[in-house]
Amino acid sequence: MPLSKLPAVMIEPIVRAALLEDLGRAGDLTTDAIVPADHRSQARLAARQVGVVAGLDVAAMAFRLIDPEVVVEVARPDGARLAPGDVIATVSGPTRAILTAERVALNFLGHLSGIASVTGSIVDAVRGYDAQIVCTRKTTPGLRALEKYAVRAGGGGNHRFGLDDAILIKDNHVAIAGGIRPAIERARAGAGHMVKIELEVDTLAQLEEALGIGIDAVLLDNMTTDQLRDAVAMVAGRALTEASGRITPQTAPAIAASGIDLISIGWLTHSAPVLDIGLDHVGSAPVMPRD
Amino acid sequence: MPLSKLPAVMIEPIVRAALLEDLGRAGDLTTDAIVPADHRSQARLAARQVGVVAGLDVAAMAFRLIDPEVVVEVARPDGARLAPGDVIATVSGPTRAILTAERVALNFLGHLSGIASVTGSIVDAVRGYDAQIVCTRKTTPGLRALEKYAVRAGGGGNHRFGLDDAILIKDNHVAIAGGIRPAIERARAGAGHMVKIELEVDTLAQLEEALGIGIDAVLLDNMTTDQLRDAVAMVAGRALTEASGRITPQTAPAIAASGIDLISIGWLTHSAPVLDIGLDHVGSAPVMPRD
Amino acid sequence: MPLSKLPAVMIEPIVRAALLEDLGRAGDLTTDAIVPADHRSQARLAARQVGVVAGLDVAAMAFRLIDPEVVVEVARPDGARLAPGDVIATVSGPTRAILTAERVALNFLGHLSGIASVTGSIVDAVRGYDAQIVCTRKTTPGLRALEKYAVRAGGGGNHRFGLDDAILIKDNHVAIAGGIRPAIERARAGAGHMVKIELEVDTLAQLEEALGIGIDAVLLDNMTTDQLRDAVAMVAGRALTEASGRITPQTAPAIAASGIDLISIGWLTHSAPVLDIGLDHVGSAPVMPRD
Amino acid sequence: MPLSKLPAVMIEPIVRAALLEDLGRAGDLTTDAIVPADHRSQARLAARQVGVVAGLDVAAMAFRLIDPEVVVEVARPDGARLAPGDVIATVSGPTRAILTAERVALNFLGHLSGIASVTGSIVDAVRGYDAQIVCTRKTTPGLRALEKYAVRAGGGGNHRFGLDDAILIKDNHVAIAGGIRPAIERARAGAGHMVKIELEVDTLAQLEEALGIGIDAVLLDNMTTDQLRDAVAMVAGRALTEASGRITPQTAPAIAASGIDLISIGWLTHSAPVLDIGLDHVGSAPVMPRD
Amino acid sequence: MPLSKLPAVMIEPIVRAALLEDLGRAGDLTTDAIVPADHRSQARLAARQVGVVAGLDVAAMAFRLIDPEVVVEVARPDGARLAPGDVIATVSGPTRAILTAERVALNFLGHLSGIASVTGSIVDAVRGYDAQIVCTRKTTPGLRALEKYAVRAGGGGNHRFGLDDAILIKDNHVAIAGGIRPAIERARAGAGHMVKIELEVDTLAQLEEALGIGIDAVLLDNMTTDQLRDAVAMVAGRALTEASGRITPQTAPAIAASGIDLISIGWLTHSAPVLDIGLDHVGSAPVMPRD
Amino acid sequence: MPLSKLPAVMIEPIVRAALLEDLGRAGDLTTDAIVPADHRSQARLAARQVGVVAGLDVAAMAFRLIDPEVVVEVARPDGARLAPGDVIATVSGPTRAILTAERVALNFLGHLSGIASVTGSIVDAVRGYDAQIVCTRKTTPGLRALEKYAVRAGGGGNHRFGLDDAILIKDNHVAIAGGIRPAIERARAGAGHMVKIELEVDTLAQLEEALGIGIDAVLLDNMTTDQLRDAVAMVAGRALTEASGRITPQTAPAIAASGIDLISIGWLTHSAPVLDIGLDHVGSAPVMPRD
Repeated sequence: MPLSKLPAVMIEPIVRAALLEDLGRAGDLTTDAIVPADHRSQARLAARQVGVVAGLDVAAMAFRLIDPEVVVEVARPDGARLAPGDVIATVSGPTRAILTAERVALNFLGHLSGIASVTGSIVDAVRGYDAQIVCTRKTTPGLRALEKYAVRAGGGGNHRFGLDDAILIKDNHVAIAGGIRPAIERARAGAGHMVKIELEVDTLAQLEEALGIGIDAVLLDNMTTDQLRDAVAMVAGRALTEASGRITPQTAPAIAASGIDLISIGWLTHSAPVLDIGLDHVGSAPVMPRD
Repeated sequence: MPLSKLPAVMIEPIVRAALLEDLGRAGDLTTDAIVPADHRSQARLAARQVGVVAGLDVAAMAFRLIDPEVVVEVARPDGARLAPGDVIATVSGPTRAILTAERVALNFLGHLSGIASVTGSIVDAVRGYDAQIVCTRKTTPGLRALEKYAVRAGGGGNHRFGLDDAILIKDNHVAIAGGIRPAIERARAGAGHMVKIELEVDTLAQLEEALGIGIDAVLLDNMTTDQLRDAVAMVAGRALTEASGRITPQTAPAIAASGIDLISIGWLTHSAPVLDIGLDHVGSAPVMPRD
Repeated sequence: MPLSKLPAVMIEPIVRAALLEDLGRAGDLTTDAIVPADHRSQARLAARQVGVVAGLDVAAMAFRLIDPEVVVEVARPDGARLAPGDVIATVSGPTRAILTAERVALNFLGHLSGIASVTGSIVDAVRGYDAQIVCTRKTTPGLRALEKYAVRAGGGGNHRFGLDDAILIKDNHVAIAGGIRPAIERARAGAGHMVKIELEVDTLAQLEEALGIGIDAVLLDNMTTDQLRDAVAMVAGRALTEASGRITPQTAPAIAASGIDLISIGWLTHSAPVLDIGLDHVGSAPVMPRD
Repeated sequence: MPLSKLPAVMIEPIVRAALLEDLGRAGDLTTDAIVPADHRSQARLAARQVGVVAGLDVAAMAFRLIDPEVVVEVARPDGARLAPGDVIATVSGPTRAILTAERVALNFLGHLSGIASVTGSIVDAVRGYDAQIVCTRKTTPGLRALEKYAVRAGGGGNHRFGLDDAILIKDNHVAIAGGIRPAIERARAGAGHMVKIELEVDTLAQLEEALGIGIDAVLLDNMTTDQLRDAVAMVAGRALTEASGRITPQTAPAIAASGIDLISIGWLTHSAPVLDIGLDHVGSAPVMPRD
Repeated sequence: MPLSKLPAVMIEPIVRAALLEDLGRAGDLTTDAIVPADHRSQARLAARQVGVVAGLDVAAMAFRLIDPEVVVEVARPDGARLAPGDVIATVSGPTRAILTAERVALNFLGHLSGIASVTGSIVDAVRGYDAQIVCTRKTTPGLRALEKYAVRAGGGGNHRFGLDDAILIKDNHVAIAGGIRPAIERARAGAGHMVKIELEVDTLAQLEEALGIGIDAVLLDNMTTDQLRDAVAMVAGRALTEASGRITPQTAPAIAASGIDLISIGWLTHSAPVLDIGLDHVGSAPVMPRD
Repeated sequence: MPLSKLPAVMIEPIVRAALLEDLGRAGDLTTDAIVPADHRSQARLAARQVGVVAGLDVAAMAFRLIDPEVVVEVARPDGARLAPGDVIATVSGPTRAILTAERVALNFLGHLSGIASVTGSIVDAVRGYDAQIVCTRKTTPGLRALEKYAVRAGGGGNHRFGLDDAILIKDNHVAIAGGIRPAIERARAGAGHMVKIELEVDTLAQLEEALGIGIDAVLLDNMTTDQLRDAVAMVAGRALTEASGRITPQTAPAIAASGIDLISIGWLTHSAPVLDIGLDHVGSAPVMPRD
């Protein structure tokens, strides 16, 4: 399915805040002192690493909020695979705006592309299996919608977006409820009809109990691939099965081979290194004609 | 120098926004359905990895904004070195609030401690040399003040906080100005008297020219350790010297040995993996007496 | 299941904005001119109609944000049934604060109790049947979380909280997709694994097609009770069944008797009249002793 | 007098917040999954009931904030009388934007038109008399400016916009002041010269006392039409006279016949049911040519 | 009449924004580096000039938002007359908080006391006459509510708070309407019943025409004292009379002697110099005992 | 160096807030009642005093945020010297928007031009000397970035923008540190490498001590011109020298003649009277043709 863009109304407040954070109370001292106001340039956003791009609308908005005259033309849209040297987009317009917005644009683009890239690498690692790679609520504060979008750009899926759009019963909840049955029953009584319920289980005995009660999904935490295979067999399609627990591109294929439906990975969003993307200035003149 | 806290007035808006991002429009469906409102617990924030803690005020505020009755007692304050199993703080109070705020608290704490930890590991690597480890403007949008604080917690220092608190003349600025001299002169004319000026140089020839004009600091980008040693010798104390360019804990000691004043590292803030910190529930009762 | 409160962090921004909307740029001209600053009073929030109360935390916050010395003691908590004359809560403290916050507190309390009350009256009308009464996205802009909470206080349930927490395929979507099958298939491909999918159907033929493909819930729009009974029989537990279309307390029982799972009603939130609740001043003195 | 529009700067923050409330953290899952990004449509906002339209600028802004390419052409502007089937406006542009913004646009339009419509029906009921129909401060939190505008669209007038733009002395104020005379005198001393003063009176004796002191307006609360007629005669033009107290379209003409200047009605804003307005899709194509 | 305080809910957002403006992204570098975290002090807010104090709640909130342990005890409340050396309040608590908040607290206090002081000096100049001194809408953007409050603290009154709480017909309006009569008639038709109407007149002929139509107040712009005396005589109590036009403490008495009701002065708010108030540190210790 | 504009993203939130502050909840009652919606005008912003203009982008944004059809053409840009009668800009477009935004636009323009003008007059007074005139942190809360910009427009420079962009050690800091040496040493240890350190000194002995330790700048507070001359001689280029303390256009030349580098003046921003700028309506028609 093609990747859907986020509406500008969701992105704009975040980009405005990021620009103000960088501009502070005096703006870009260096550029204002050195670059003439009427100087115009062209630059290229280019990949320096293999990866997947995400965040072009966000980066473009950073340039345009500094100066609406900046034009961003996208060559490789969000979700595209990148090789080193690939041109992602060209940015042209007033040089001051390009230089002033550059860092904020790259901070977003590198961060989101970093998430898309690690997602993409795990998605590739499990290609051929049915398992979907999904992210968690372990996101950077303030950027959840953007980071979840970046996971989709990388070919992954999204688990819960917050505490309020699905129920995930964890070990603490079970302990407080006094068992799996009362935990599930309270959750069912409390959940709206459009809300799915998932239960974290640590043992196959717990899994058996949960399936007897009925559940939409089970989170199989830190199980071996053998345990996962047994769990998938025991579930037999009666619930979605999700594996979690420090899964890497190396361990993911064996886990996917267990027949699991979902592999959830916190570090897609909380520990993905930035993807190295640069802004290369390719042309510049005191006053470049507008085409 | 002891680490100074950030005033609550700087932290609170960021924590409020992060909580609302996670609570959405319905709050914590799972906890509300399963945990009785009067249930109380005690839990421990504990390290699962070696590292440096940062962000305890932020995490504590997350708990208290959900319920002011939650008490957070800190055992190892921001800046403390952590070994696996170390208890960082105890969190006690209404169980619902502890569970509801847990993810946001950990997202902040893990992210900021991750930055403090990688900073700490490089600071350790160059111990004995004069070089200070500093971060850049390559921060996560919306979190600059917190991330810069985390670098300080890890023993590092801060480069510019934004475009407006110092001048950093980069290659593009020099090219547009038509040379190092006009770039520095325009910067001096434009900069306030409390603003320092730094110049990025790629060659020793450029460095020589800059020193002749006068400059507060020079950024020596992507130089070999030999080049750095020559540069430091050439500068001879006339300016601060800063090395940058993909420096790692492995390469840092050799760079520090060049006599450089500063080593700036973008990935401290843009690519530090989260530090694994967990919240372990250690006591719980339908109604725990308040002590 | 007992009603869960919304965290204060979700309520406070809405109450602050409402107070500022009423205070304008000069505050309460009348009270400031007439009531001495040290005058203290006691007042009672009392029902003037039969209904269900909702919004006491919101109302109490309005008083306390004007003056933290105001004490609100709740006699009948959110969700309680009210008869005319019932005292809901007592409000005591500085008279100025009580008078200044009164209108905002009552505007929230009356609006939310109005929603809870109409919900409660329909919930009562279908008591004995399995059908749950649920609200829709037809809420007052800015108040969705509060209005959905008020529906829960009235004994109802909540349908989607927004465009992003469940999929509801309407007739326009089906038309654009070119049929029910492609619409459901695209939705499945696009939906996360924790997202339920519901389809609006107008005829039993559409329903049959949808059940053959598989669907979590079906919205049976504007069907007669006979049609609903046939639909429920055809579904036979393979999906949740939801009836909608201008359902009233009078028509609800017959619809519930069809065996439907859910009855969704837009006017619970968009057209519920306010519940008449008054603030009766019961004691007042130039300076009332604080007990 | 023709109805004046509210400046966009007053409307935009409210519409942005309403869109974000509905889009949540993932946007319109259904539409994004099913509708191609380049699909374009035309739709009509049409009345399903008799009423008065209000809120077209607000609804149009909802569509355009999702996508500035959406064009809204108004056929019946705010304040126009509607019959069932009347086309109010056409909406054309990208289908995704039209579907995504539809609910927010209709929530505003239905709510504000509902207020305009009940206002219009009472205004009609008292046509031929001098009495003006006015609303109160019993508005929905966050929407006061819009709801007061809707009352104007329906032919009514506005009483106070907040606690700060006029003085209204109520029974509690009189009691605390120790009588009508000290209450009015304190109000006069405290009020700015551009601020009018109104007094709530329950009896003709109170009215007489107030007129002797001098007052801009009197609020005659819950009086019979006979009492109102006597009150109007007693006032004899020395103050504006306002009747209030659960006045309906049925009781309004008799009250207006008493010669009263103003009839204030809280339920215009707090309990008006939504006006039923629908968005009918009338044309749609994979890629509709832009005209 | 005693001065009424503004509710904290009106002040807090402005003080928070001012603190963040000064703290930037790193907080108080100087104090954090030099002053130990547990150091405590006592200081005195003291007048260095004759004047009237205003803004103590605002200043106190600045200290307490940095650290709630700071205690501010007021010796001379808002509205009090000050002589050089007068202690206005004592501030005690953590030294860091006192030093960090000092500038913001003084910026508010000096600015608002400056306005109160110039107001007070004109109020004194016209003592014995009936004329009230009032301010205008010529206020500093963002501070209108506070500046209008400061005028009240100085003994003055407030003209309109905004474009929406009274009608003031100026020469441009009259010109566009085509005369005084149509301007007043349109204003009456458009104004709510609680809204007063004032007309700016430049000549006695215009005044006569306006009085014939009926008007609440007349603004006599830039008239000589002779003209004002004639105008007051012509009005003969039928409207409030307001003089405006660069009135100073020197010219005010003669104007007041004309019998005018109001003297409006823009520079009270737009050009009042700050009142010089200092914060004198009077006691300090590594750890001061809390009393 | 030419004056650089502030990016719109920095200005817009301040202008929006100022407009909402003036529009309140009902907008411009007078203009809406009297001026037809399709009436168009042309007006001129004209100086009524000698001065320097600043704030044209801010004023223009006020007009355009009310109605994007308003066109502002600048004749004398920010920083230009003005004589009485000089036309600064023409404003043309819908009359309602021009009248509604006029006061906010003029409030900004007069305030900022007032600051630029007093700055300009001192800059003129010291022309021929090396001393630069700079402002302080004594700014109006909420307007620091704009006021600092206005100082630049007037030919001055900016001292610190906040507590976080430079270190200024004052007498209280020295006292708490226990002397000049420990104060400077703690500051050096705490300051980032791009942060300059300034010390306030009251005596030449203190100055001597500070120079021995090393410091970037010294603030010579309330010294006589003789003392300043001695201080400058003692410093001999080893630090920047700054004079402060109630300096006026009259006293500034003598101070500048001492050879001081900087003269800092708080009243540039906290007590500058507004510059009198008017908006003169020069053409108007029921419907003016758009050119």
